[in-house]
Amino acid sequence: MERIEHRACFGGWQDVYRHESAALGCTMQFAIYLPPQAQDGPVPVLYWLSGLTCTEQNFITKAGAQRYAAEHGIAIVAPDTSPRGDEVADADGYDLGKGAGFYVNATQAPWAAHYRMYDYVADELPALVEANFPVTSMRAISGHSMGGHGALVVALRNPGRYRSVSAFSPIVAPAGVPWGEKAFSAYLGDDREAWTRFDASELVKSAAEKLPILIDQGEADEFLDTQLKPWLLKEAADAAGYPVYLRMQPGYDHSYYFIASFIGEHIAHHAVALRK
Amino acid sequence: MERIEHRACFGGWQDVYRHESAALGCTMQFAIYLPPQAQDGPVPVLYWLSGLTCTEQNFITKAGAQRYAAEHGIAIVAPDTSPRGDEVADADGYDLGKGAGFYVNATQAPWAAHYRMYDYVADELPALVEANFPVTSMRAISGHSMGGHGALVVALRNPGRYRSVSAFSPIVAPAGVPWGEKAFSAYLGDDREAWTRFDASELVKSAAEKLPILIDQGEADEFLDTQLKPWLLKEAADAAGYPVYLRMQPGYDHSYYFIASFIGEHIAHHAVALRK
Repeated sequence: MERIEHRACFGGWQDVYRHESAALGCTMQFAIYLPPQAQDGPVPVLYWLSGLTCTEQNFITKAGAQRYAAEHGIAIVAPDTSPRGDEVADADGYDLGKGAGFYVNATQAPWAAHYRMYDYVADELPALVEANFPVTSMRAISGHSMGGHGALVVALRNPGRYRSVSAFSPIVAPAGVPWGEKAFSAYLGDDREAWTRFDASELVKSAAEKLPILIDQGEADEFLDTQLKPWLLKEAADAAGYPVYLRMQPGYDHSYYFIASFIGEHIAHHAVALRK
Repeated sequence: MERIEHRACFGGWQDVYRHESAALGCTMQFAIYLPPQAQDGPVPVLYWLSGLTCTEQNFITKAGAQRYAAEHGIAIVAPDTSPRGDEVADADGYDLGKGAGFYVNATQAPWAAHYRMYDYVADELPALVEANFPVTSMRAISGHSMGGHGALVVALRNPGRYRSVSAFSPIVAPAGVPWGEKAFSAYLGDDREAWTRFDASELVKSAAEKLPILIDQGEADEFLDTQLKPWLLKEAADAAGYPVYLRMQPGYDHSYYFIASFIGEHIAHHAVALRK
């Protein structure tokens, strides 16, 4: 593991590391913000999963999250959104292949060789982080759009692993919207049963642990009615008695200006759970 | 004037406009953040001048300033850093030509035709903003690196025009460092007397108004000893009885992670002056 960026930020350090991923079979980069409190002892970690087209850079440069992480004494780990490198399969378009791993374990050629972002995010990365940084095993998870989908799925499939979960503008029902149908068809093939294991609106129906889900969604989001449809998760969760706090935010769109406006409240939400 | 971006942010709006600049003789873009308070009446304005290679986008996407502007009820206007367009002269290298206007009025060919960023920032843009947005004529000015130089020069040359001034990692003595020597030689020619009128360390010696200058400078800034040398301004200001608050910040570099870490304190500094 090699540190490739190291920048003072709000009294802590915004770093970026490069490492060889066993799960993905390629070289990956991830960002980690270590708050000032990490100099005195281990701190809990919030994992942030980014959306389509992003790398580990988008969140750390645009969300303004470090201020709140420094206030609450929380580290933030932000991985890339897909395997990378010349040997990794890719596709035309921003919504499949590199930058669009969808946090699944692909079973279909040519994707199965590297596209195992679920294993990477749920298992390999937390183990790596907890072995190498001053952090505790108290974890929270959040993300945006495709990364909101990833955060919900990873939390729902791993009861007891996370203290809290939230999402911005998540793809809550990927098996039934164009982005998810395209990605799942390619990565998972025709087995619709396999799709449901990566679909938050399906997973809430039988969740073993009912971790409250905080969701912020902009009402002026250009993808709201076609790709996101957060009410599908809310309806399924309500029927299952699963607590989902869906906040529709008037005027806000799908951009990082929206994330920046509410990331402080999300980090406060996670901080409460991580302090318990 | 045409609005080309409009995004909800911290209860206000982060907009970008395109307009024809008379001073520059080309089409320009500038960003304006209107805080929620602007819906109820005019608010004061902080002008932000960016550094080398930047456009109107860098500050609005990376600094996290909107949170503080919304708290204090201040609009923020962020112009581009040079004239733009196919008809505008350019040079190889990031430190001359487009993205490197240095906030001067060029007198030399081929630059004199369009490179009048001083007039644009000091006169044309404030007049445009005050005629078209819900803002008062109470102004503050700040900037980063080349933009810190611009903010200091514009404030020092226009007594009574600004309520407050600050800078991050400014080029305080451009006439004596490589970036400034290259730019001033090209834009202003060999007339060293003309250079002094765009050099903050010279201007403080005879300033008609002693507006206190707040400067934050990272100690790990890679340009500190070669291009920035803030002590040159501090020494000249001390000799002239001009108040300069120079804060050296251990560990911080020249990046937006540094700006983000302290922009809240700068906006609070401006807010105090703008409330008077």
